[in-house]
Amino acid sequence: MADTSNEELPLRRAAEICRGTLRLMAQLGYYGVTEMTLANNRRADIAAIGPAGDIWMIEIKSSIQDFKSDAKWREYMDYCDRLTFAVGADFPQELIPPDTGLIIADAFYGAVIREAPETRLVPARRKAVTLRFARLAAARLTNAADTGWTPGEDTLTSPLS
Amino acid sequence: MADTSNEELPLRRAAEICRGTLRLMAQLGYYGVTEMTLANNRRADIAAIGPAGDIWMIEIKSSIQDFKSDAKWREYMDYCDRLTFAVGADFPQELIPPDTGLIIADAFYGAVIREAPETRLVPARRKAVTLRFARLAAARLTNAADTGWTPGEDTLTSPLS
Repeated sequence: MADTSNEELPLRRAAEICRGTLRLMAQLGYYGVTEMTLANNRRADIAAIGPAGDIWMIEIKSSIQDFKSDAKWREYMDYCDRLTFAVGADFPQELIPPDTGLIIADAFYGAVIREAPETRLVPARRKAVTLRFARLAAARLTNAADTGWTPGEDTLTSPLS
Repeated sequence: MADTSNEELPLRRAAEICRGTLRLMAQLGYYGVTEMTLANNRRADIAAIGPAGDIWMIEIKSSIQDFKSDAKWREYMDYCDRLTFAVGADFPQELIPPDTGLIIADAFYGAVIREAPETRLVPARRKAVTLRFARLAAARLTNAADTGWTPGEDTLTSPLS
């Protein structure tokens, strides 16, 4: 038996849901980055931008306990047009708040069970979130492509590793 | 001796200059993506976005011949605030057009020899270029992080491999 502690399982579960959700979103034309720190210092699990510039964020929940212990998701809503929860197939769907969407995902793919209601960002906020997203994605891409590179200190608050 | 054909050498040279230039730009707070296709179907060697959202593009030239055989760089200027040539240390600097900047780079780092004059994009164009940049960087990042993923067909015109 592998030595898998109780702390590791939820993390692995969350990573699996994240991968399946990113694949689904890409199929829908939304390319995402993980763990994007917002201006309010909250960190969105996934932030994605669609063809028309609309911003869709995802909150991943690996378990009921994970859902109940974390009420920070409301603070993401000020930074996106739509917010969706992504959970595993065994998660009780009635827990998902009605003003958000729902994705069921595993490590390989996912499905949109319920569309999220849209609340459009004001242009200045959209511009700021898009800029943050663009620079974070490019910084991580450079980091992935150039193992000898060390990111410089600047206003990006997310860890780049 | 390795079997290095005459066609491969300039490509390798360009890749080296590209890497050093990306590192330099990151140090300056500009995170870049390579080979970004623009709305006019030209492909910028490097496009980067700075902290305030300004867009800086780089045209890499591996040799005098490469420079003389390609006059497409003027068409990039409509999509960025500044355009800079990046070349190796042996490139004759007097060939670089005065309305552009100059970077000298090798595979490990680079230096800004001459700042590029700035011509500010109009907001609608900046918004469109930033959106394209953001989605391309995120799509490539997902591709790099998830080897099992196949990017969907959409409006992104750049190759994602």
